Amino acid sequence: MSTSDAASTGAAAAARTPFDLPDVSGLVVGVLGGTGPQGRGLAYRLAKAGQRVIIGSRSAERAEAAATELGLGVEGADNAGTAARSDVVIVAVPWEGHAELLASLRAELAGKIVVDCVNPLGFDKQGAYALKPEEGSAAQQAEALLPDSRVTAAFHHLSAVLLEDREVEEIDIDVLVLGEERAATDVVQALANRIPGMRGVFAGRLRNAHQVESLVANLISVNRRYKAHAGLRITDV
Amino acid sequence: MSTSDAASTGAAAAARTPFDLPDVSGLVVGVLGGTGPQGRGLAYRLAKAGQRVIIGSRSAERAEAAATELGLGVEGADNAGTAARSDVVIVAVPWEGHAELLASLRAELAGKIVVDCVNPLGFDKQGAYALKPEEGSAAQQAEALLPDSRVTAAFHHLSAVLLEDREVEEIDIDVLVLGEERAATDVVQALANRIPGMRGVFAGRLRNAHQVESLVANLISVNRRYKAHAGLRITDV
Repeated sequence: MSTSDAASTGAAAAARTPFDLPDVSGLVVGVLGGTGPQGRGLAYRLAKAGQRVIIGSRSAERAEAAATELGLGVEGADNAGTAARSDVVIVAVPWEGHAELLASLRAELAGKIVVDCVNPLGFDKQGAYALKPEEGSAAQQAEALLPDSRVTAAFHHLSAVLLEDREVEEIDIDVLVLGEERAATDVVQALANRIPGMRGVFAGRLRNAHQVESLVANLISVNRRYKAHAGLRITDV
Repeated sequence: MSTSDAASTGAAAAARTPFDLPDVSGLVVGVLGGTGPQGRGLAYRLAKAGQRVIIGSRSAERAEAAATELGLGVEGADNAGTAARSDVVIVAVPWEGHAELLASLRAELAGKIVVDCVNPLGFDKQGAYALKPEEGSAAQQAEALLPDSRVTAAFHHLSAVLLEDREVEEIDIDVLVLGEERAATDVVQALANRIPGMRGVFAGRLRNAHQVESLVANLISVNRRYKAHAGLRITDV
């Protein structure tokens, strides 16, 4: 490296802000649980933004059928195939199947950026309430089960109804992105930024994922009271 | 009640929306822990909005001194006197003193609307993290200790720096208000609405207070990364 190269690298590093994020347009995004409303909606938005997307399901046939319906070049595969072929893997399965699925994909997910967007919730007559996973949160459970992956948490507060509604052009929301590794959370923020209206905001370490996951219970109360599809924006950022 | 009265009452009830809130301008607001930055900032904003405010502290002298410094007609008293003389009592004490103080004020707080805004957090080298009170949350601890009060939770995500900064005219934030009783949460929302820029949004029952309280740990991470005083807005409401 020449002196001038070193100087310009130093200048670039000094000029780097939290808003300088990598180009993620070439990454393949897999969505486990991609045939559910949340996964399907995310796959649709990312594919529409130009991302190459594979949706995964227990059954490759169901995944392929859902992919065909989505169009936009989305492919379908079984969960293991989806994990193996993707650079970034979004986990959008129901909480009940979360641990079992991730444990079964440890090899396929090794080295990959995993984005957990699962909200462990219970429901009764009074509405939704937070479940407390033994590990602290769904994201920390993923971290425990996938020691060879780069685990992050994001995309918790999106309305599947809005994501799937093709009349809706922009999703007015900040996506809180959590994780231990800056390079990984930067990629996830950049992915969120590709979707019109959406913005990825870094919001802490995985040990603070539980409250982000369970805030969905509050958004459900907001939706019921105001007949809304509530989301969040972070002010002053 | 005449037939026409009954009809107009029915029409009014039918027309009532979540945005129809009571007039709270005549209520006296007490702030326990009113000499700390959060309490002082809230007292300042409410008094500036025209509310009659009493700040409480363990020492009446310290409370009176802080009240004089705030101006705007704010009064100071010891915590018991503040509780006894107020219609709505905001609890803004450190988590460490929360249980002891509330247990000691059960009689004075009977029948009052109590607004818990305490965030039980721990701090270490990696930043802030959520503490989990035995009762589930600070608000649920208040509910357990004050069975004769109308306990709500709100004002968790405010920056004391912004609240206290007299150059700041508007506080750009939605205040999430939680509670079991509609009439009580309506009053607290209406109080939040009095402060320019602020909006009170109902966000569920007290059993869902923990994630709202501990989300402050995430906002602290946001503040550190973006050099901000981050707050929340709820979209689509």
